[in-house]
Amino acid sequence: MEQDARSAFGQYGLKREYVTSTAVWERESSQIFQRHWVCVGRVEELGVNGVRPFVWEGQQLLAVCGDDVICRVFRNVCRHRGSLLVQPEECSAVGQRLQCPYHAWTYDRKGCLRAAPNMENVPGFEAKDLGLLEIPTAVVAGFLWINFAPQNSAAEFLEPIANVFAAWQLGELVVATELKYVVKANWKLLFQNYSECYHCPTVHPALNRLTPYLGSSNELVSGPILGGPMQLAAGVGTMSEDGELVGSVIPSLDPLQKRQVSYFTVFPNVFLSVHPDYVLIHRLQRLSNRETEVVCQFLFQKQDRELLNFDPLRAVRFWDLTNRQDWEVCERTQLGIEDVGYCPGPYSNLESVVAAFDRHYLASLGDFDF
Amino acid sequence: MEQDARSAFGQYGLKREYVTSTAVWERESSQIFQRHWVCVGRVEELGVNGVRPFVWEGQQLLAVCGDDVICRVFRNVCRHRGSLLVQPEECSAVGQRLQCPYHAWTYDRKGCLRAAPNMENVPGFEAKDLGLLEIPTAVVAGFLWINFAPQNSAAEFLEPIANVFAAWQLGELVVATELKYVVKANWKLLFQNYSECYHCPTVHPALNRLTPYLGSSNELVSGPILGGPMQLAAGVGTMSEDGELVGSVIPSLDPLQKRQVSYFTVFPNVFLSVHPDYVLIHRLQRLSNRETEVVCQFLFQKQDRELLNFDPLRAVRFWDLTNRQDWEVCERTQLGIEDVGYCPGPYSNLESVVAAFDRHYLASLGDFDF
Amino acid sequence: MEQDARSAFGQYGLKREYVTSTAVWERESSQIFQRHWVCVGRVEELGVNGVRPFVWEGQQLLAVCGDDVICRVFRNVCRHRGSLLVQPEECSAVGQRLQCPYHAWTYDRKGCLRAAPNMENVPGFEAKDLGLLEIPTAVVAGFLWINFAPQNSAAEFLEPIANVFAAWQLGELVVATELKYVVKANWKLLFQNYSECYHCPTVHPALNRLTPYLGSSNELVSGPILGGPMQLAAGVGTMSEDGELVGSVIPSLDPLQKRQVSYFTVFPNVFLSVHPDYVLIHRLQRLSNRETEVVCQFLFQKQDRELLNFDPLRAVRFWDLTNRQDWEVCERTQLGIEDVGYCPGPYSNLESVVAAFDRHYLASLGDFDF
Repeated sequence: MEQDARSAFGQYGLKREYVTSTAVWERESSQIFQRHWVCVGRVEELGVNGVRPFVWEGQQLLAVCGDDVICRVFRNVCRHRGSLLVQPEECSAVGQRLQCPYHAWTYDRKGCLRAAPNMENVPGFEAKDLGLLEIPTAVVAGFLWINFAPQNSAAEFLEPIANVFAAWQLGELVVATELKYVVKANWKLLFQNYSECYHCPTVHPALNRLTPYLGSSNELVSGPILGGPMQLAAGVGTMSEDGELVGSVIPSLDPLQKRQVSYFTVFPNVFLSVHPDYVLIHRLQRLSNRETEVVCQFLFQKQDRELLNFDPLRAVRFWDLTNRQDWEVCERTQLGIEDVGYCPGPYSNLESVVAAFDRHYLASLGDFDF
Repeated sequence: MEQDARSAFGQYGLKREYVTSTAVWERESSQIFQRHWVCVGRVEELGVNGVRPFVWEGQQLLAVCGDDVICRVFRNVCRHRGSLLVQPEECSAVGQRLQCPYHAWTYDRKGCLRAAPNMENVPGFEAKDLGLLEIPTAVVAGFLWINFAPQNSAAEFLEPIANVFAAWQLGELVVATELKYVVKANWKLLFQNYSECYHCPTVHPALNRLTPYLGSSNELVSGPILGGPMQLAAGVGTMSEDGELVGSVIPSLDPLQKRQVSYFTVFPNVFLSVHPDYVLIHRLQRLSNRETEVVCQFLFQKQDRELLNFDPLRAVRFWDLTNRQDWEVCERTQLGIEDVGYCPGPYSNLESVVAAFDRHYLASLGDFDF
Repeated sequence: MEQDARSAFGQYGLKREYVTSTAVWERESSQIFQRHWVCVGRVEELGVNGVRPFVWEGQQLLAVCGDDVICRVFRNVCRHRGSLLVQPEECSAVGQRLQCPYHAWTYDRKGCLRAAPNMENVPGFEAKDLGLLEIPTAVVAGFLWINFAPQNSAAEFLEPIANVFAAWQLGELVVATELKYVVKANWKLLFQNYSECYHCPTVHPALNRLTPYLGSSNELVSGPILGGPMQLAAGVGTMSEDGELVGSVIPSLDPLQKRQVSYFTVFPNVFLSVHPDYVLIHRLQRLSNRETEVVCQFLFQKQDRELLNFDPLRAVRFWDLTNRQDWEVCERTQLGIEDVGYCPGPYSNLESVVAAFDRHYLASLGDFDF
């Protein structure tokens, strides 16, 4: 631990407007959420038919695994009258082709329009111009990423944690269970909360016993991906209700990694928490300036999940408790920042990663008044 | 059937803004809903006391049948402090005069202020200036129509279907039953949906058996009133669960009319569906850009309704099913059009009436970019 | 009673915009609710720990009784990251100091920051600059008043009813019970409703028997505090279900005061109703242009409340009924005024205090078009 290396550079928190203003909401849309790689799930979630409709930032999207085993994301919107192509409850009934239930326009799994009844006589009609609208996609570490206006590749973007993906063999892990929350707080408050353990003694007594808060350090201290390890206390195997391992230790880890938990934030929608025996991912989606949806997935080694006596509950309950403790302080902070009299306070040096998040956030918006 | 006569003229659907923008909502208010004749119910609904409060486009209105048997519509708002005069639950208790429950100001059934306690000494007070505010009204075909700023008479406006009103003796029919819906879709999507049977094979298998979708033609192909007949299949008497008649055939119909169902849209709030033995009316009211209230009334001949064994359920259940199938695709289409990436697609020639609706809608707004 | 002295000066009601416009809402915030003394409760409500969090106009506030027995109001917002300091459910657990549950920053009861872990090395950190933000406060007549930007003292502001406070010994009375309502009407409609008894014969038959509506007069006829007495009918002791006294008559009242009920409005959030044996206060808080929260407290002499057979219910039920009758007409009036066709009507001279309220309201906003 090198606490000296940390500094919040005398920064103060974000101004109130960044949490309350409609103009900021819109600027975040265009400057951040339409231009960054965001994680929208695991590839394995595509299921038997290889089709999954989902909503991202109010947009109706459809992940489809093609005959060519390539995963694509389209707007889930028929090119004729705009009807949704697939609803969640219909996924298991979808065949090889995607047929609109309104007027039976039919697309293949690469998004090409293959049939459109009664359109043959329409002047100017060209099926090739009316394929499903596609969103740039990448699969990295078993996760599906999308970016409406990519400036770089997902691999380049995720390069700072490529070694983590490799060591934890993330592409091979499988989802054991999932938790979902709607938190009444701005998405940035969740990022800030995840980025420091200054609050651990007061908010997380159980967590603080397993990984004492001063035993943290930072590997990545600027840019879109931030974070680093915390040391497990003596005799503690992983983050769980009793500190005992829940899965088997991932064999490709080095001795140091087997005694740590590492926490990374991937701007603007992922928290990645890697343990000796499992990986936890939080995916965030803002619903409004004051509401954020969080999906938490627990990833284990396939052979662990297949064991008869496999039981992830000691990890799930531990993190569900920790999550709820965090959501509570985030919601209190939302209420306080909404107060018209709120003015930002100074960060301690234990909040150096919060300060780095703020800097990256403001730079993404093109704001430099921090 | 003259399918050749039909053309959508290569038109594409309305732009996304017409379904999502607040500015369009406001322009629709002033250009369409405040300036067109709209149907607000049957005259017979006025009930024993001849008084019915209702809301139209957020406005508090009151239909009153006067001593002179003339039906008037007023703002349901006292001229003193603005209290509502009559609430729905109070209708049966209303006497000859309309008394405000706040300070007892009292109006007669022509809307004149007749009593206002303690006002006699107020300088400038003139009862004649303080009558209820009246909205232009007409009774046509047994329906009550209002228009805040009429440019023509209701009879002139409805002239294109005057022959339908006459043949079906609409003024004599009576309401047998009523259905109500709130559809999570823009009102225009419901008009577009009603205006074509291109969707019938996929969406309405039961309906399509009674009236095969290629057996439709159009009588009215431009302007505010659009539509035409569909032929009943051999052996089918009317639109009902089993295709059998539900009422007796209306005697004034000609042989052709006895073998058809005709569908008309009356811009901006009525669908009129005339069957050999009954008439169905849909009245629409937009609640927001994404929500529309629909009231469906089933009109039969008075002598049918009085029969001991009269049972309209086979018609009601048929249309309730058909309505719900339509609302589902309208709601899917609403979600798809709200997607920021939505772009309008081309109409088939089977959607010529949809295209005509769009043209009339845009012209009413003063927009000509179609 | 000197009805001649009353005049509404030919005034008409407020224009529709004052009830519906967002711009007016904002101007009321800055011109009225941030600049006037408003009552936020009884000092005795501070409870055992002397701490009470509350919301006023969307702001998170905290009333605290200090070691020096002085009552202060702070923003309930930690100066570090903005978390709420105290939630209602935590009040009983609060110790002498106020500790933020997020990162344990700790304040004393005068609002000074006393501890901030890990902040000692932060350049520029000065605990003295990071005390809780304080709101100007006053205790008058046992009530706690706040004013974000006071132009005068609370005592000066309340001077017109200082004699009422003294005669009723308001500082000594205690809360016996409390009622709470959310009324679907603009706050000004509640003020206007309270300010006249012209509606009493129609709306309040029970009240009108105890204090016939023509037996009212006005003492205060202009400015922020308005109102005056109504005479109790012969044989009536107080306002209660049966007209009998509920508490003992307050000994310091003069013979006239023992035969009257007086009603005062204190702009912009209090109605004060003083009876021979008890005092009723309505505290209003606007929630939106169409919603107002009302808290009603019944204040009795301490020795009355301590009697074994003390039962305030005959007064509480009487006023609960009267309140609900008033809220109903206020809500009807809200609906009527929201109608786009609403236009204001003339006031009778029995509504002279309503007219005076309107004048003071418009002057406070800086509007003079009445």
